[in-house]
Amino acid sequence: MSNTHQNCNIGFVGLGVMGKNLALNLADHGYRVAGFDLDTSKVQDTLNTEAAERPESVTQPRIIGCESMEEMLNNLVKPRVIVVLVPAGNPVDAVCNNLINAGLEPDDIVVDCGNSQWTDTIRREAEYKEKLKFFGTAVSGGEVGARFGPSLMPGGDANSWKYLQPMWEAVAAKVDSNGKPIVSNTPGKPVKEGEPCTAYLGPNGAGHYVKMVHNGIEYADMQLICEAYHLLRSLLGYEPEEIGKLFEKWNQGVLNSYLVEISADILQEYDDATGAPLVDMILDSAGQKGTGRWTSISATQMGVPAGIISESVYARALSTLTSERELAASKLVSDVESGEISADDVEKAIEEALYCAKICAYAQGFQLMRAAQKEYDWKLNFTDIAKIWRGGCIIRASFLQKIADAFTENPDLENLLLSDYFADAMATKQTSLRKAVVLAAQSGIPTPSFFSALAYFDGYRSEVLPANLLQAQRDYFGAHTYERVDAEPGKKFHTYWQEEGRPERKA
Amino acid sequence: MSNTHQNCNIGFVGLGVMGKNLALNLADHGYRVAGFDLDTSKVQDTLNTEAAERPESVTQPRIIGCESMEEMLNNLVKPRVIVVLVPAGNPVDAVCNNLINAGLEPDDIVVDCGNSQWTDTIRREAEYKEKLKFFGTAVSGGEVGARFGPSLMPGGDANSWKYLQPMWEAVAAKVDSNGKPIVSNTPGKPVKEGEPCTAYLGPNGAGHYVKMVHNGIEYADMQLICEAYHLLRSLLGYEPEEIGKLFEKWNQGVLNSYLVEISADILQEYDDATGAPLVDMILDSAGQKGTGRWTSISATQMGVPAGIISESVYARALSTLTSERELAASKLVSDVESGEISADDVEKAIEEALYCAKICAYAQGFQLMRAAQKEYDWKLNFTDIAKIWRGGCIIRASFLQKIADAFTENPDLENLLLSDYFADAMATKQTSLRKAVVLAAQSGIPTPSFFSALAYFDGYRSEVLPANLLQAQRDYFGAHTYERVDAEPGKKFHTYWQEEGRPERKA
Repeated sequence: MSNTHQNCNIGFVGLGVMGKNLALNLADHGYRVAGFDLDTSKVQDTLNTEAAERPESVTQPRIIGCESMEEMLNNLVKPRVIVVLVPAGNPVDAVCNNLINAGLEPDDIVVDCGNSQWTDTIRREAEYKEKLKFFGTAVSGGEVGARFGPSLMPGGDANSWKYLQPMWEAVAAKVDSNGKPIVSNTPGKPVKEGEPCTAYLGPNGAGHYVKMVHNGIEYADMQLICEAYHLLRSLLGYEPEEIGKLFEKWNQGVLNSYLVEISADILQEYDDATGAPLVDMILDSAGQKGTGRWTSISATQMGVPAGIISESVYARALSTLTSERELAASKLVSDVESGEISADDVEKAIEEALYCAKICAYAQGFQLMRAAQKEYDWKLNFTDIAKIWRGGCIIRASFLQKIADAFTENPDLENLLLSDYFADAMATKQTSLRKAVVLAAQSGIPTPSFFSALAYFDGYRSEVLPANLLQAQRDYFGAHTYERVDAEPGKKFHTYWQEEGRPERKA
Repeated sequence: MSNTHQNCNIGFVGLGVMGKNLALNLADHGYRVAGFDLDTSKVQDTLNTEAAERPESVTQPRIIGCESMEEMLNNLVKPRVIVVLVPAGNPVDAVCNNLINAGLEPDDIVVDCGNSQWTDTIRREAEYKEKLKFFGTAVSGGEVGARFGPSLMPGGDANSWKYLQPMWEAVAAKVDSNGKPIVSNTPGKPVKEGEPCTAYLGPNGAGHYVKMVHNGIEYADMQLICEAYHLLRSLLGYEPEEIGKLFEKWNQGVLNSYLVEISADILQEYDDATGAPLVDMILDSAGQKGTGRWTSISATQMGVPAGIISESVYARALSTLTSERELAASKLVSDVESGEISADDVEKAIEEALYCAKICAYAQGFQLMRAAQKEYDWKLNFTDIAKIWRGGCIIRASFLQKIADAFTENPDLENLLLSDYFADAMATKQTSLRKAVVLAAQSGIPTPSFFSALAYFDGYRSEVLPANLLQAQRDYFGAHTYERVDAEPGKKFHTYWQEEGRPERKA
């Protein structure tokens, strides 16, 4: 380690798996990184990995390890750019304050690349305004993404973006002119051509908000795939490997996506110890870290219907009640139909149902971002958002190119379902979604997110909903008033309902 | 108005419609009320109403109007009990502080009867500990309930309860030994016999939390009734009046409830101006004031599956997008089946489906309270809660007696669905819920809460859910680990998935 000025381009605080991999990614692209971690073994591990991957780094290192924040700051060109990759919450503020104490200057840029809540990013940008430029960049793609090309969702001080842009565009995942990811997962041989999966999204919390919605959509995507698997297995008696092969086939069509691809892999994996399909040895209890919940809560707070995402969050919660479900399985008698069904028909119905439900889930996610941009006065570019999700991130899918196209055609599109492309898809394939829901309902297979998707589609396209009765109920018991279909909007009416015991209506 | 000490039993700050009616209710039971409102016309209105309703009050008033908080305090016996009925939020704190400045003493009891969030009640009990006894009492039943017998959900300082108990039990709604409300909505002739719909629920926020869940259930109840109406109208082409009469019939059976009763009334009402069924003149855009959202958010935060409630909240949100839905109705082609169906079959299916879905919605609400009591260290008595909802409140229904019975039989019941009574009901009637879902799916009628109810039932009774695949996906892209079905609980496993570009597995 060295105390002389090394002219590093970027500092890192936090060299856990994400920090280390993102630092190595930057080094692959020729950037010089000054890294610091309270846990010095992580610094050493990062240096060791660089040495192992790139032998010439012994004499010409691109990553230097620092023993203190001061040392790191001394090794950076100004304005300094420092990536913070520590657990979300108080640690981020602690790092900011430590950096300030270590000599950070007001023009220096602190980039929070962790899983922070967008409201914290909004707060921090304001709170540290005089002392540093706070910038958020959400990173998706897990450890492999961080190493070889993540999707990067930056939001923060607009002026700072020009310092970050070249580096972010270099390390981000790339897609070709058809929107397909260009993948080279070899250390030292980064992808240099293609369109980078990053774009400046707006001030303060915009990047972290968009990432949160990405994760909400990811919850829905995962749950929908699981429901498709569950239907295939229960209705047709397919083994995991068979379903894995079917998913491989699906992955060649409109459902092409990272999540379908890895599901195909998973389902074809066998357990070393027992020889059983590995998935059957895994406990059906799903964890969650919070971003799905936040998405659901944000949608509820803003009044944006996002039932598919919420049902996906609840499905994970329900899955954790393993002992209760065991009891319920013995106690709650099922009364289901099992008619003759053709395997080909069912396969086709479920494949198309998955596609329809996916369209609805993405429609909800984009609606949510549309509401958030009003709430927070952002100007989100939905084409850019769809584009930067095409590669690097967990929900990457060729489907996202179609979403980008839809928003390019009409940037003010009110709902994805209203674009010609997706309206057509729903027109031709909705019967499959209906069939999947019918099969699930008749045979007792829980598919909350498929159900919610169909209810959303049918609700959204309903010119008349029974909310008139609901509003009448509210007026009846709570005098909440209602609007009339034949009066100007906003004009309130109240009926003096003849409830027993209410004083007589005054003449 | 008078400055001499009137030995009043209870003070009121806020004489809007709820405050006025609750004060009149107390007066009916012989209590002497000292009322104050910043808006002196409301004080006068309360006095005028008392004078009109009870002529002898001119010489022997039971409600006295006060021109200041000091005057009100001077007229109360000690320890003073003061009901606050002002808008939730800052006004409640403002009143507390004004009361303290006006001479309130530490043993005096301030009862917040507004729609406060339970977290505020928790905070306030702690914050004002030295200066007053803060007590929450949520009130359900709207204006008629407040006047002639609401359901009261008290939570707060346990010692204060003994001062409130006689008054609360006097003014609360009453039910007979079969759990049926005893109604007498005549001023001056209050119901004195029967079991009162109130019970001490626990410290600080317990009362307001229970009331919030009541409202969440109310959202589900209302939405489910609306979906039943929508199905009947769309599938069978029934006119509102016909459905109203059918609801009247349903109201004689297991669905007997205030909400079905008023829906029957509403649907048989005609518009004076046009002669059309009134419901058809009401805009299908439903408002909401927040408690449904809070319930949904609380469930999401604690990880309690409450999809039916959340879908009901979202259904209201979707209904407000009237112009967007109009556009979508023209753009999104429907592809639905319309087979031969027998009206009798459909009626029966929808009636039983409504019952099944209602059971599931209540199961979710009670699960949520079970989670909250762990979270906040309350000891909720679920029998009491079901009992105090039998009368006075919006969700009152004979059904609640069955819930009370189930919790009496087993106070530790993990889920309502696991009680013999409701398990039997679901066993015999679930085919109707399946049929309703199938009909809705095939004919394109949005029934998000029916759908969610069936998914919840089938999910809860599933010994195996596809969360094993989901957890494998999480382990694949994020190394989140999983548990194995053949290993001890809590032991974590990780598979080194062979993703392209990941370094080879170390031997």
